[in-house]
Amino acid sequence: MPPAAELLTRLRGIFPADALATGEAERIAYSYDNSRRHALPDAVVFPTGHAQVEALVQACREYRLPVVARGRGSNTTGATVPVEGGVVVSFERMNRILRIDPDNRLAVVEPGVLNGDLQKALAPHGFFWPPDPSSAPWCSVGGNLACNSAGPRAVKYGTPRENTLGLRAVAGSGEGFRCGTYTSKGATGYDLTRLLIGSEGTLALITEATLKLTPKPSAIRTVRATYRDVGAAARAVARIMAQPVTPCALEFIDDVALKLAHAHGGDSVPLAGAMLMIEVDGEPATLDGAVEAVSAAARGDGLEQLSIARSAEETLALWSARKALSPAQRTISPNKINEDVVVPVSHLPALVDGIKQLSARHDVLIVSFGHAGNGNLHVNLLPRDEAERERAHACLADLFALVIALDGTLSGEHGIGLVKREFMPLALSPNALGLMRNVKNAFDPDGILNPGKLLP
Amino acid sequence: MPPAAELLTRLRGIFPADALATGEAERIAYSYDNSRRHALPDAVVFPTGHAQVEALVQACREYRLPVVARGRGSNTTGATVPVEGGVVVSFERMNRILRIDPDNRLAVVEPGVLNGDLQKALAPHGFFWPPDPSSAPWCSVGGNLACNSAGPRAVKYGTPRENTLGLRAVAGSGEGFRCGTYTSKGATGYDLTRLLIGSEGTLALITEATLKLTPKPSAIRTVRATYRDVGAAARAVARIMAQPVTPCALEFIDDVALKLAHAHGGDSVPLAGAMLMIEVDGEPATLDGAVEAVSAAARGDGLEQLSIARSAEETLALWSARKALSPAQRTISPNKINEDVVVPVSHLPALVDGIKQLSARHDVLIVSFGHAGNGNLHVNLLPRDEAERERAHACLADLFALVIALDGTLSGEHGIGLVKREFMPLALSPNALGLMRNVKNAFDPDGILNPGKLLP
Repeated sequence: MPPAAELLTRLRGIFPADALATGEAERIAYSYDNSRRHALPDAVVFPTGHAQVEALVQACREYRLPVVARGRGSNTTGATVPVEGGVVVSFERMNRILRIDPDNRLAVVEPGVLNGDLQKALAPHGFFWPPDPSSAPWCSVGGNLACNSAGPRAVKYGTPRENTLGLRAVAGSGEGFRCGTYTSKGATGYDLTRLLIGSEGTLALITEATLKLTPKPSAIRTVRATYRDVGAAARAVARIMAQPVTPCALEFIDDVALKLAHAHGGDSVPLAGAMLMIEVDGEPATLDGAVEAVSAAARGDGLEQLSIARSAEETLALWSARKALSPAQRTISPNKINEDVVVPVSHLPALVDGIKQLSARHDVLIVSFGHAGNGNLHVNLLPRDEAERERAHACLADLFALVIALDGTLSGEHGIGLVKREFMPLALSPNALGLMRNVKNAFDPDGILNPGKLLP
Repeated sequence: MPPAAELLTRLRGIFPADALATGEAERIAYSYDNSRRHALPDAVVFPTGHAQVEALVQACREYRLPVVARGRGSNTTGATVPVEGGVVVSFERMNRILRIDPDNRLAVVEPGVLNGDLQKALAPHGFFWPPDPSSAPWCSVGGNLACNSAGPRAVKYGTPRENTLGLRAVAGSGEGFRCGTYTSKGATGYDLTRLLIGSEGTLALITEATLKLTPKPSAIRTVRATYRDVGAAARAVARIMAQPVTPCALEFIDDVALKLAHAHGGDSVPLAGAMLMIEVDGEPATLDGAVEAVSAAARGDGLEQLSIARSAEETLALWSARKALSPAQRTISPNKINEDVVVPVSHLPALVDGIKQLSARHDVLIVSFGHAGNGNLHVNLLPRDEAERERAHACLADLFALVIALDGTLSGEHGIGLVKREFMPLALSPNALGLMRNVKNAFDPDGILNPGKLLP
């Protein structure tokens, strides 16, 4: 049902000319994300400032019309799919870096700035913003904040929750507000900043963010270790994380993934039971010691080969397997189910072992790789036909149950969105979910912000 | 007014024998904290487990009786003073370290564990928990979480919000719940963990915490730099924080504080316009480079002397001024007003300059020192008589206005409590305060948890 003509007139007043789109082509273009779910919005708007977002939410609240914030739609959980219609708010035109302030180690940005563009702008100042999802070149900072998206570097530098100082936003009530600080410390009232981060657009729309910057380490070194089997590699991960030198990346790739990558990437990709990519960064003089420390921990029962890159070319060669992985998976299954479960690092051996068993029991091809230093594995189910797709869904439920039994949780960095909310009661008690519903109500009393997401 | 006899009977059922105290002596002992405000509670209870806390809050909710959580009462803001009576919940008997798990870099503790006892227990495992308030030997982890208390190390390692993975708690509704994870990454629903941290017992009572541990650096080096005046030192702080080596402590001491400390601590305390204490930590091989980097940044216009400690004795000698400071202040004014404002580091010169002017204009002795690397200064007003005490209060309002004008905030690590809540509208807009009130209502619908605190 299209929004009432009255509301449409009002939206036209807020969003002149091409800042409002109601044509079918545009609506289709904003109907889906990387989850491959889709649902048509009634309209798409392209704000260029905070005041427009306030006016939009106030108008939509009057008409009880859903409002769905959207960065660049690279998320994998359907978090930006307008399942109940309404207005999609694309922040792609609010893409200015408002301030880079190296003296205070902060940057102020609009939500539509691309993560990769931000990193490029920060580099000349000697700083970076740690969150680094693999979609960094084309995903937005606002989306990163909404989903608490991270990437390999989180093992050392944390996620958006550890790297954001403050926000400006518009609550579902239509009220604009600022929260957080411009300082690296603050104890002035409730932490609304972290509450909004990871809330997937269900509490408020972020219109500005003050990001905490980190000095760019001047050097990086890469180590690749292959193992007899996934268990041996998982045990090495636990050893690496139990010693004092924290790597800036600690990536795991299982045997199935290596085989796939080898078939597509050629002989530079090793065939092994499992592989770890380990990176350390810091001042150049410190790196020999750091490489030695992580290598010592990487060695142990089941290690097959340990290679240390001595040049940029060697580093690239070592990463070839990881790079070949995503295209390789797509050729097998266009319907891959991409999960990102997380368990305490010492439970990784049990998780990878359990995944092998689930793959066999449900007869579903599963490829596992990811940010092992955080215990965060991308578990990719690759169904090749409809029957396998059905088995994959049953397998998924068992996977989540396994993860919870291992003291883990449903998502490390992708979020819940549409596709995982039915599993939320596995991870959270009725009381915790009830409090989250109360919090939702505190920000969005009429439930207009991104309905149908996150909370079951 | 004592609680109804009926409720008292019910509390006796929950808290047998000496776990419930209603005698005047005990009530007086739990009527005040380090703010030197006081108000008598109706009763004091000493839970030993989560279930007791649930039963307590449920009972008190029925009778609309206030419930005030208390660690060890070392906070300076009156956050644990039962201004509306009710039951003080002292967590001193819930002081068990439930689990130290070095493989997963976490510890699970009850809230009454003392910060110092936790650090001692972690040391043999090669880990520490970063929050280090100066009261560490006698303050509780639960209190640290409630107030988001930090200390010098926060400049490198963050505050409780960056160092806590999950919590168990009882909301004001009487519902127990768990939030957060046992993993170092999580994107499963709203971040209730960080919301509770810093909420000063107004949303829920924390009964268990899963803390993120950090590997203990194997070595530390101390540098002391004295400056011609506070402005020169403040500019050096901004330079130190703008280069890549982040110190693990960067403490500022102004000229008034140095004079005080010199008078009490003797000639080992330098007399200067201002002083910085700078510490760097890490693997021993990295420290020469780190000391060089921070020393280069510390040098500049106005530097008078830079000393690098070569031994443990020299380190102790360098810290003597800082150590002499607290006893020195007490001898001058038993009524010191201890604030902990925070501004972006590059605004520190303007802040210290502004404080000098306020001290002159209001004719109040002010001593400033603190965690300059975070822009977090302890501004101590030291009124020596009643007249000066009145002038100090007016000065305080001007101080907060100055801090807000400099993009700063009211508190870096002490919190708001009773004494600063009247100033909250300076820092937060009516909309932000309204959302905080909604959040309060979401957790504590009858407003029984720590009434009269934090929100104006």
